[in-house]
Amino acid sequence: MEAPSIPDFSRGDGLLPAIAQHHETGQVLMLAWMNQAAWEETLATGKAVYFSRSRGKLWRKGEESGHVQTVREIRVDCDADTILLKVDQVGAACHEGFESCFFRKIASNGSAQICETRLKEPSEIYSHP
Amino acid sequence: MEAPSIPDFSRGDGLLPAIAQHHETGQVLMLAWMNQAAWEETLATGKAVYFSRSRGKLWRKGEESGHVQTVREIRVDCDADTILLKVDQVGAACHEGFESCFFRKIASNGSAQICETRLKEPSEIYSHP
Repeated sequence: MEAPSIPDFSRGDGLLPAIAQHHETGQVLMLAWMNQAAWEETLATGKAVYFSRSRGKLWRKGEESGHVQTVREIRVDCDADTILLKVDQVGAACHEGFESCFFRKIASNGSAQICETRLKEPSEIYSHP
Repeated sequence: MEAPSIPDFSRGDGLLPAIAQHHETGQVLMLAWMNQAAWEETLATGKAVYFSRSRGKLWRKGEESGHVQTVREIRVDCDADTILLKVDQVGAACHEGFESCFFRKIASNGSAQICETRLKEPSEIYSHP
């Protein structure tokens, strides 16, 4: 069996950006990072698995929050160095409690304003009574 | 005047990923990179300007191909380290002549197949008779 050559984890120090997009609405939910192991586990399980740069380990999206991403389709770009996951999102993709991490709009003067509705308070997401 | 603190170019060695999404259809077109100068020129001109990692300089999207991106909305994510541009795309976003760089779908066995229609041959895009 020929090994798949894409995505190409020899680029970007072995970490490639992965965009998660809502499968039905097209909303861009978040951007995270994948290494080879995250990629393989995502393919094998059908759930989004990333590599957390801050924690230095695999991040099975939803493992703490329950906000799992079920992968419906995977695409890779022309340079084989960016991954696009089309997902069904349980709950909020964002740890701040918004459906999407991109909840701030930038005005032409560079200022930011929140333009989405928060679904949950962060304290609700991560507290496990 | 308070300087805008987002996006935060002190992260990611001064280069942040920028996702371009079609303003109307929601199709994810490409991912490129921005530094502070690319960001400021994008805000000032309303056209997408990236930083080309391979060429080591600003890349005014469409300057050679004519495939300009007019920016309709800009968002920044919760960590202020990823940019989302909602754009009107002239022609093909991808240098391979596809509307989107994400023209390859990955099957569960990891193999890739082209799932979009090429709009132009690359030779057509970059030849200037």
